[in-house]
This record gives sequence, structure tokens and C-alpha cells, in this order.
Amino acid sequence: MFEKFYTERIKKTPSSFIREILKVTQNPEIISFAGGLPNPISFPQEELKVSMNRIADKFGAKIYQYSTTTGLDSLRQFIVDKYRRVHNMDITIDNVIITTGSQQALDLIGKVLVDEGDKVMLENPSYLGLIQAFCVYGADFIQTKLDDDGLNIEELKKTIKEHKPKIAYLIPNFQNPTGLTYTKENREKVFECIKDEDMILIQDDPYGELRFSDDERIPYIGVNQGKKNIYLGSFSKIVTPGMRLGYLIADKEIIRIIETAKQAADLHSNIFAQYLISDYLENNDLDLHIEKIKKLYKEQAGAMVDAMREFFPSDIKYTIPKGGMFTWVTLKENADVMQLFDRAIEKKVAFVPGHPFYVKPENINTLRLNYTNADCETIKEGIKRLSEAIKEL
Amino acid sequence: MFEKFYTERIKKTPSSFIREILKVTQNPEIISFAGGLPNPISFPQEELKVSMNRIADKFGAKIYQYSTTTGLDSLRQFIVDKYRRVHNMDITIDNVIITTGSQQALDLIGKVLVDEGDKVMLENPSYLGLIQAFCVYGADFIQTKLDDDGLNIEELKKTIKEHKPKIAYLIPNFQNPTGLTYTKENREKVFECIKDEDMILIQDDPYGELRFSDDERIPYIGVNQGKKNIYLGSFSKIVTPGMRLGYLIADKEIIRIIETAKQAADLHSNIFAQYLISDYLENNDLDLHIEKIKKLYKEQAGAMVDAMREFFPSDIKYTIPKGGMFTWVTLKENADVMQLFDRAIEKKVAFVPGHPFYVKPENINTLRLNYTNADCETIKEGIKRLSEAIKEL
Repeated sequence: MFEKFYTERIKKTPSSFIREILKVTQNPEIISFAGGLPNPISFPQEELKVSMNRIADKFGAKIYQYSTTTGLDSLRQFIVDKYRRVHNMDITIDNVIITTGSQQALDLIGKVLVDEGDKVMLENPSYLGLIQAFCVYGADFIQTKLDDDGLNIEELKKTIKEHKPKIAYLIPNFQNPTGLTYTKENREKVFECIKDEDMILIQDDPYGELRFSDDERIPYIGVNQGKKNIYLGSFSKIVTPGMRLGYLIADKEIIRIIETAKQAADLHSNIFAQYLISDYLENNDLDLHIEKIKKLYKEQAGAMVDAMREFFPSDIKYTIPKGGMFTWVTLKENADVMQLFDRAIEKKVAFVPGHPFYVKPENINTLRLNYTNADCETIKEGIKRLSEAIKEL
Repeated sequence: MFEKFYTERIKKTPSSFIREILKVTQNPEIISFAGGLPNPISFPQEELKVSMNRIADKFGAKIYQYSTTTGLDSLRQFIVDKYRRVHNMDITIDNVIITTGSQQALDLIGKVLVDEGDKVMLENPSYLGLIQAFCVYGADFIQTKLDDDGLNIEELKKTIKEHKPKIAYLIPNFQNPTGLTYTKENREKVFECIKDEDMILIQDDPYGELRFSDDERIPYIGVNQGKKNIYLGSFSKIVTPGMRLGYLIADKEIIRIIETAKQAADLHSNIFAQYLISDYLENNDLDLHIEKIKKLYKEQAGAMVDAMREFFPSDIKYTIPKGGMFTWVTLKENADVMQLFDRAIEKKVAFVPGHPFYVKPENINTLRLNYTNADCETIKEGIKRLSEAIKEL
């Protein structure tokens, strides 16, 4: 009865396909590779308990009161110090705003930068949460080809020339959903293509810390070169997602307009959570903690790749993850992944069909697998079941 | 340099005037009646500390993990039970969604219900956070007259007939900024005027619990009569604002579409905070705690009213608050409240000029005073200083 009241923008916004799927996978007999949940090992529970008691004693009423829209200064300063040190970024606290998870950063950017019909360039496929967030604001999406080493440069040039996008949204590290990472060379070429364009470049990086090898970190695209870069980060995959703390790094003029949008959206992010994470970071070695997470995820990713090698038919392609939380499977051409999903559920294994990661899903023969939430034996059993479903297609 | 990238919607959105003013009032010598902060007595610090340790022990990783968009069931159930008991509302858990503060509820309603140019009826004056939130979505605001006993019924009828608003946004209890409360009779008349209209009625009620007298609670407008009512509530003024937890009660069809908008906005609200507040509510007597807050605020409000009686020139009008956090002062016609603000700052007292509470501020001779954040002696001194500034106008 309320349909007539709804806005055009919300009618066009897809509800989360994955959240629908998760309802199917509530059955405890089903081995689920569908979610994107961090393993609970990534939550430093004991240390957070110490921190919450410490901030309660140390700061009293402040941890419960209204606070500033831009966020807690000590937390912003931690981010500044880290990005100066690790990413060699020339930034100060005025370049950082704390957001209610990275998802809010996407929503605020949409509010501030995406007018109805504005062209937004994404990887093909891309993160469904971004598609949702920008859809609300009427973005006209263009998805451009993603190869194993990063963006396909020829396609990128064509896309830019033809569409002149206002915004490019990229996930250069362990991309969601494909698990792919752009090489250093590819990033340099991408920057060459966009540096003279009138375009805002958003680099979303929730998984960058979760690199399995000891190889050198690959720099972001165009660091310190021009002011049109926006970087997104999050504490969700390395400390806790339940606290909903992410951040946005950008030119301070952009931070100021994002601040206005955030005032209207939620006044400020949970200040208790900001004191808590700030205290945790001050009193613990985050890098050491991340090592533990990486060790676990590397084993789990290895178990999944080994099982895919052992059980999958040889014409099935998949990403070999070097970090992050996902692998991406490509079935043979014309395979019907929704049909596979139904068969897989019968065999008690679940995954996310590729559809929600495409703006215009057609003939989708891809699927996303998450490996961070099952032990190695369960992963092997799940992949075995999935292989059987694939062979019956 | 980024102006050309900004959306039309954000260019039209006012940044918070109050937050600008708060910067001026940082000087500790200034007595500030400008903010809207709850007194720290309203934070049950010891009890919350007990609760955070209990939930850490009891729920482990769950308090740190991703969670559902609609919110924690036990917290939603608490809200259901309370609104059934206290407000006689015929609702279930499916009628409730937890939001990141009430401000997010306003943002989500805007996303879902306000298309560019949609008519939204507000009290005159009204809450500036609503004006900000809906401005983003292109609302066409109409402000209608507010009398001491509630909406002016003649004006309301005219406004409805002339503009056919899609949405009415009202704050019937201890309104922000005026401190006024609609009488029972007025509420019934308002409902008569709107019940057959094709209009969504939002009743925002952050202050309803803070009623100073023991008089009976006045029912909301149109409870259980039709499905087009949306109720907003918040834990900010009765437990803690820093946790950013509010809620929205509506028909379940509306809850479902708000859920989609919330997925795109921040996935879900801080789940630790939801477990914390839920545990606090389960193990403590909230009503007893609210009694303490009311006692304090009643004294403070009384001190302010007494001082205004003593010091203000007799042609100055003001609200005598029966609850909530604010009083509203009307200077003589044509008085320049911005000039008064500058003089008041010289005398080291601050307030919020009426401007941000009007959609089209013209010849504003009103101002808002908050009394919850100073002791009675300081309140008296502040009002004395303000009176001197008024007399010099």
C-alpha cells in the first residue's frame, strides 16, 4: 500500500542479494562459502575488554556524550601516522574523517558527488555495496574490464574516451568479489590514463592489510599526485566489523563537504567505539595481530585452492588469492549459475552467484567463494560437494 | 577547486549552524546555553561498565561481528514491549528497526520517501537536523504555525488544502527548539485534519520521557489508527547519545524498504552498542534512572525561568518548559537577534539564534536556550548577562 509514496531512487535500489542468500544458508548442515564475515580470530577480544575498562576509567562521561562529526582526533591521528609511514602519504588530520563503516563512506560520497545520471566507472565485476549505495543517487554505471593483473588498459582508454566518467571506483587490493590485485605496472598505466582527466578516483581498500606473502606492498594509484584521490579504509577486517568504523582520506575541501553530509546522516559515529579502537591501537601491536589473521586466512585459502585443484573439472577457472577473503570461479560459457546454486543447496553447500556484482547481469557464469569462515577440512568437503554439483550441470 | 564536482543536493544543504556556533563557545569563560547536550548525569556510567563486561563474557565474538540490518532482536523486543505497555501500540518486532541515532532515521526516511520537490510540512520553527536531512533529498518545505497548545488548526487546514503535503513531520512533546507540547485536545484536532489525507505522519520524540510533572502522558497522534504513522525514538537523551542508537517504528512494509536503504547507508548499526544497551535495560530500572534526570532538568529549567522572570525586560516572551531540554525566547518585534548574539558573546554568554530552525529565516527575533548543561547558579548568572545584552539592543 505504500508503493506510491516511495522515491524513484529507492525503487531502483537493489536490496542485498547476499543478505537474501544468507537466509537460505541458516541451515547448520549447509557449508556456506556465501558470507563475507571475518573469522572471529580477527577480533582481539581480550585486549578489547581491557581497553573498554581502561577508557571507562580514564575518560568517564566523554565516551558516552555527543561528539564531533569528523571523529576522535587520536584515532584520526593514528590513521595519519600509519598512512604517512606505510603509504608515504602527505596528509594531516584535516584529510581524515571517521565514518560509520566503509559503507557509510560510500553513501556520503554518493550524496556529495553523484548527481542523477553522473557517470561512474567500476571494475567488472565490482563490490555490490557500492552499486547499492550509488544507485540511490542515480549513478550511471560503466563497468570496465578487469584482467588478472588489473584493469585492461585498452578497455580503460576506450571507456574514458567514450564516457568521460566523473568518478572511478576501484578496489586495487584483493578485490571483492574476484580476489584480484592490480600489479605495480598496471597501477602506473592506470594512473597515466586518468591523471589528466577531470575525474575523482576512489580507491577502496578493506583487504589491503591481509596480504599472504611477504612481498613488498604495492603503492596506491597516484599517491601524492594531484588532489582528486579519495582513499577508503576500515577497521572491520583487522579489528572488528561490529563497531562500524571506517574512514575516508581526501583533500581537506572534500572532507569538509563530506562532514556536512555526515551531520545530516548520523551527526557522528559512535564515540565509545572510537575511544575503544583508539585505545586498543595505542596499547597493542596491530601488525602482530594482523600476522595471526593472515596466517589463518592463508591456510584457509590454500585449502580451498588445493580442493579446487583436486575436485573441480579442468575447464573451471578460479582466482588463486594472494590475500583478502575471496576467490572467484568462472564456469564454462553458458553455464547457468543460478541452476548450480539450487543444486549446490541440495548438496548442502552455498556460494554467491555472480549476479549482484554486475550492474547489468546477463548470462552470468561466475560465483564468489569465501574461505575465511570454515576450517580446512570443512572447506575441502564443501568444495567436493560443489564439484559434484558442477559436474551434474 | 572541487565545487564543480559537488551535487546539486549538497550545495543546497546547510551545514549545521549550531556546530559553527559551538566553536565560538569553546572559550571556557563563556556560559553557553547554545548546545543541546544531555547532562552527564543522564549516562549511567557504572551500570554501563558492568554491562559491557557482562556482554563480553556472555556473548564473546558476537558483539564484534557483522550483524543484521534491522538490529538486535532483544533490543527491538524491549522497544515493542515498552510501546505496547506505555503507548498502547499494537506492534511487533517487525514494526521496529534500529538506526544509528534518530538522525539516521531522518536520513533514511528522506531517502525512501522524499523525491525532489515533494512537499513536507513542518512546525514553524522546527528541528534543524530534519531540515538538513530532507534538504539533501530536495524536499519542498512548508512550515505551519505552532501555538502554545500545539499546531494552529486553522493554519493547518489551510496548509493541507493549499499544499497537499506528502509528509508531515511533528515533534509533539517538548519540541525542539520551542519546548512546546501539544495538548491532548490539539492532538485530536490535528488527527481529524490529517486522517483522511494521503499523507505520512512522522512523530519525532527524543524528549517525551523527560516530562517534569506527574501529569498523565499525552498519547501520540492517531495511535493504532491507520498505517501511515512513523514514530521515532532514541536512547540519546535517556541513556547515552555517544552510542548513536535510535529507532523507527512503522508499518512493516515501510520497515522493509527502510531496511534496504539502511543496507546501502551503513549495513547495520554498531552491534556492540546494541548488546550493551539491551543488557543495561534488562538489568536496570530505566524508569528510576529517568526520574533522576527529570529531577535535575526540572531544577535547571526552574532556575532559568526564575532568572528570566527576575532579569528579562517585561516585553520579552519565553516558553515555560514542562519537560525536555530547551526554552524559546521571543524578543520584541524587529529586534536583531544576530546583533544580540554578538553582544552576548562580548558579555560571555551564548545561545542559538532562531535562524536555523526556519526554512526561510526572515526578520528573526527568536532564540533557543538550553538549560541542561549548567548548574543553577551559572544559569542565573548567564541569564543576567543575557538580559544586559538584551537591554542594550
